[in-house]
Amino acid sequence: MYNSFFINKGPFKISEILSLLDINKEIVEDDVNIVNISDLTSSSRNDITFFHSKKYREIVKKTKASFCITTQNLKNDLPKSCTPLVVNNVLVSTARVTEKFYPNSINDFFDNTCLSIRETELKDKVKYGKNVLIGKNVSIGSNCLIGHNTIIEHNVSIGDNSSIGSNVILRNTIIKENVNILDNCVIGKHGFGFFPNNTKNIRYPHIGVVIIEDNCEIGCGSTIDRGSMSNTIIGKNTFLDNQIHIAHNVKIGENTIIAGQVGIAGSTIIGKNVKIGGQAGISGHLTIGNNVDIAGGTGVIKSIPNNSKVMGYPAKNLREFLKENR
Amino acid sequence: MYNSFFINKGPFKISEILSLLDINKEIVEDDVNIVNISDLTSSSRNDITFFHSKKYREIVKKTKASFCITTQNLKNDLPKSCTPLVVNNVLVSTARVTEKFYPNSINDFFDNTCLSIRETELKDKVKYGKNVLIGKNVSIGSNCLIGHNTIIEHNVSIGDNSSIGSNVILRNTIIKENVNILDNCVIGKHGFGFFPNNTKNIRYPHIGVVIIEDNCEIGCGSTIDRGSMSNTIIGKNTFLDNQIHIAHNVKIGENTIIAGQVGIAGSTIIGKNVKIGGQAGISGHLTIGNNVDIAGGTGVIKSIPNNSKVMGYPAKNLREFLKENR
Amino acid sequence: MYNSFFINKGPFKISEILSLLDINKEIVEDDVNIVNISDLTSSSRNDITFFHSKKYREIVKKTKASFCITTQNLKNDLPKSCTPLVVNNVLVSTARVTEKFYPNSINDFFDNTCLSIRETELKDKVKYGKNVLIGKNVSIGSNCLIGHNTIIEHNVSIGDNSSIGSNVILRNTIIKENVNILDNCVIGKHGFGFFPNNTKNIRYPHIGVVIIEDNCEIGCGSTIDRGSMSNTIIGKNTFLDNQIHIAHNVKIGENTIIAGQVGIAGSTIIGKNVKIGGQAGISGHLTIGNNVDIAGGTGVIKSIPNNSKVMGYPAKNLREFLKENR
Repeated sequence: MYNSFFINKGPFKISEILSLLDINKEIVEDDVNIVNISDLTSSSRNDITFFHSKKYREIVKKTKASFCITTQNLKNDLPKSCTPLVVNNVLVSTARVTEKFYPNSINDFFDNTCLSIRETELKDKVKYGKNVLIGKNVSIGSNCLIGHNTIIEHNVSIGDNSSIGSNVILRNTIIKENVNILDNCVIGKHGFGFFPNNTKNIRYPHIGVVIIEDNCEIGCGSTIDRGSMSNTIIGKNTFLDNQIHIAHNVKIGENTIIAGQVGIAGSTIIGKNVKIGGQAGISGHLTIGNNVDIAGGTGVIKSIPNNSKVMGYPAKNLREFLKENR
Repeated sequence: MYNSFFINKGPFKISEILSLLDINKEIVEDDVNIVNISDLTSSSRNDITFFHSKKYREIVKKTKASFCITTQNLKNDLPKSCTPLVVNNVLVSTARVTEKFYPNSINDFFDNTCLSIRETELKDKVKYGKNVLIGKNVSIGSNCLIGHNTIIEHNVSIGDNSSIGSNVILRNTIIKENVNILDNCVIGKHGFGFFPNNTKNIRYPHIGVVIIEDNCEIGCGSTIDRGSMSNTIIGKNTFLDNQIHIAHNVKIGENTIIAGQVGIAGSTIIGKNVKIGGQAGISGHLTIGNNVDIAGGTGVIKSIPNNSKVMGYPAKNLREFLKENR
Repeated sequence: MYNSFFINKGPFKISEILSLLDINKEIVEDDVNIVNISDLTSSSRNDITFFHSKKYREIVKKTKASFCITTQNLKNDLPKSCTPLVVNNVLVSTARVTEKFYPNSINDFFDNTCLSIRETELKDKVKYGKNVLIGKNVSIGSNCLIGHNTIIEHNVSIGDNSSIGSNVILRNTIIKENVNILDNCVIGKHGFGFFPNNTKNIRYPHIGVVIIEDNCEIGCGSTIDRGSMSNTIIGKNTFLDNQIHIAHNVKIGENTIIAGQVGIAGSTIIGKNVKIGGQAGISGHLTIGNNVDIAGGTGVIKSIPNNSKVMGYPAKNLREFLKENR
C-alpha cells in the first residue's frame, strides 16, 4: 500500500504484543522484533498479520508473516512459518496492535501544529486567501490556489495547477495535478470504522490516505474519508458534484461522473466511465464495473457487471424497472 | 424539561397576553400574573398552556395551568380550574405567547457577543486552534480540544475529554464527556418548525436544547437542531457518520450506529442498539424500538417495534423485502 | 435574462470566432462584429446563438441572431437571416464561444480581491461578526447581519433586513429583503455542468446568477448553484431546511416548503405552494405544478401537474402508493 504518511513506531518485541493481547508469553521461544502489521498478502517475515474469515483461506497459505492474529477455528490454516496468536475477536485485537504501531492513525483531533501560511515557506509559492493554515509535511506544486479559511493539516501533497476552495479541511491526502476541490469539503479524515462495544465503541486505525488523481473536481460540502488498511482513490478526470460522501477504502475509476448527494459506502470499487445519478446510494464491499449507468435515486446492494444500466431500490436492469413502473 | 438556557422574561399580566391574542379582556376578573408557558402536563398553577387536538383529551383533564389556549370545539374538555382562551389557530397563538416569554428562542442570528478565546478565561484551560470564538455562558471541562475556526456561541457546556473539530458551530447545546464532534457540524440551531403563512411564514419558538451524552461521535458536516418544546437528545456511545441531519425534538437511545447521509425528521424517538444504514430516512413523530436494524436507503414511515429488521421504501420486514426483490 | 454580473468582453470579429471553432473563414463575406452570445429567443441581430436539437425547430425560425452554431442535419431549419456555423458538437462549441465572451464564468476560483469588512465602507452600515470578508461589487441594505467567518465574494447584492449566518460563502447572488441564510451554505457557485471528455472534461460557462426573493429561509449546509444560461431562482417566502442541494437553472415558486436533504437537479421548475418531504429527489428538466405535495423519500422522474400528491420511487399518486404498500 502506498502510504507515506503514518509513521511506524515499531519494531516491538513480540512479548510486548502478546502482553497487549493477553496471550501467554510462553507460546514463543525467542522474543523477536516485530517490524510491522500488515494484511496477509503484503506482510513480510517478522511482520504480524491477521486472519479472521474463511474467505481468505487460499490467501493465508502464502502469507510470509511470522505471526498471525486469528481464532481457534482458523489457526490450522496457517502455514508452519506463521505462529498463530489466538484471540476471541480478531478485528478488535488487530485494531489494538495497529494502534501500537501507528498511534496517530486512531484519532483525528485538530492539527495544533498548523501555522498561518504567512509564517511558512509556501507564502511565496502559492496564491492564497485570508486565514489559510498549514500543518506539518505539506507540499504544494506550482500555480496553485488556496481559498480563504482553508486548513491544510499535516500530510498533504498538492500537485501543480490545482485549486482548493474556501473553508476546506484536508489531511492525509495526495492531490495530483489540475484538481479542483470546491468549498467546504472535508477530505482525509478517518472513516466510520470502529468495533461496536457497549459503553464505548473502539476506533479502528486508519493508516490509508486519500488519493485524488489528475483533473478531478470535488463538489462543495463533500466528504472523502481516508482508508483503513488501504487507500481511498478518486481516478483521473472524475467529477463529483456537491454534498457527496465517499467512505473509507472506496476506489473510483477514471472519467466517472457522480451527481449531487450520492453516497458510497466503505470498500466499494467503482470502474471507469461510470455515471451515477443524484442521491444514489451504493452499499459497501461491492464492485461496480466499467461503463455502468446508475440512475438517480438508485440503491445498489449487489455488485454490477460492466456496461450495465440500472435503476431502482434495489437496483435492477433499467429497462425492466421502467417497464414495471410505467 | 431540562432547559437551563432560555431565560423566561415573565411574569406577564394575563391582560397583556389577552391583548396579544386579540381576546376581550373582560373574560377574566382579576388581572393575575402568568409565570410561564408550558405543555399540558408540566404546567403549574399561574401558567398558560395550549390544547389543540382531541388526542390530548385525557391529558388535558389533569392540567394544573390556570389558562389554556384552545378552540371553541375543544374548550369544554378543560377542567374548571383552567380558563379557556379561544383562538382560531392554537399553534400560531401559542407561538406568539412563547415568543413573549422566550424572545431569544425565535431567531438564530449569529452571536455577536463572541470573543476570541484568547480574550476569555478558557484560554488557559483548553487546547485550541486558530481563530476560535466563544460566546456568553460557555463552560468547557478539562482536557478538551477545540479546532480551528470553530464558533462556540452562547449557552454551550462541554464535558471533560471531549474534542470539537474545526469549522464547527455550536449553540444551546450540552455536550457530555468523551464526545467527538467532527469538522463542519452545526449543532443547536432552531429546527425547521414554523407555521406556513402566505407572504411571510411565522417561526415557531425553539426553547429546547441539544444534549449529546457521553462517548458519542458526530460525523463531519452533520446538523443537529435543538428542540422546540422538548430537547433533542443523542444517547450514550451513539455514533453518527458524516452528513447526517437530526431534526428538532428527536431522541436517540444508547449504542446506536447511524451511517452517512441519514435523515431523521422532527420528534421521532429511536431506541437503543439501533443500526441505521446509509441514506435511510425516518419520518417525523415515529417511535423506533430497541435493537432495530434499518437497512441503507430505507424510508421509514411507520413506527417499528423492538428487535425488527426492515428494508425498503416504505420499510417492510427485511426477509420479505429481499424475497420479493431477488 | 437578468444578469448584472458577468461582463461581456465582446464585441469580437466573426473571423475570430470562426477561427476558435476551426471553421473556414471563407463562409462569411464581411468580417462583422458579433456583440453577444445568447439563446435562440433572446438573441438580437449581430449576436451568435446555438441550435442543437429538433425540439427547438419552431423557435429557431424566429431567431434574430446573425449566426448560429449548429449541425449539418439541423442547419436547414435556420431562417435566411441567420448564417449556420456547422460543427460536430454544438454544446462544446457553444461553451467555447461563451467562454470567449464571458471568461470569468468558467472557473470559480476563490475571490482573491476580498478584503476584511473592516477595510470597506460596509463596516459602518452592517452588523458583522469576526473575520468577515467582502469582495468587489457587493452591496448590502440596511439592518442586515453577517455572521462570523462568512465570505461574501464578488457580485452579491443583499436587501434590507436580511441575515447571513456564519461560515457562509456567497457569490453571483441577489438576495432580496427579510431573507435568512443559515450557517455553512455555499450559494452562487457554478453548477455541475460540463461536457464529459476523456482525459479532461470541459467546463460549461455559467453566466446566470442565484436570486433569492423576499422572506426566504435557506437551511444550514445547503448549496444553491447559479444558472448556466438562465438564473437559479428561489421564490418569495419559500423555506428550505438543512443540507439541501439546488442545482443550476432551477426555479422554485412562492410559499414552497422543502424539508431536509432534498436534492433538485438542473433546470427543473417548481410551482407555488409546493411541499417537498425530506430526502426527496427531483430529476432535471422537469416541471412540477402549483400546490403539489411530494412525500419524503420520493424520487420524481416525470413532470407533475398542479394539485397532485405523490409518493414513491418513481413517484406515483399518493393514495395508490399507500394502497399498494399497506
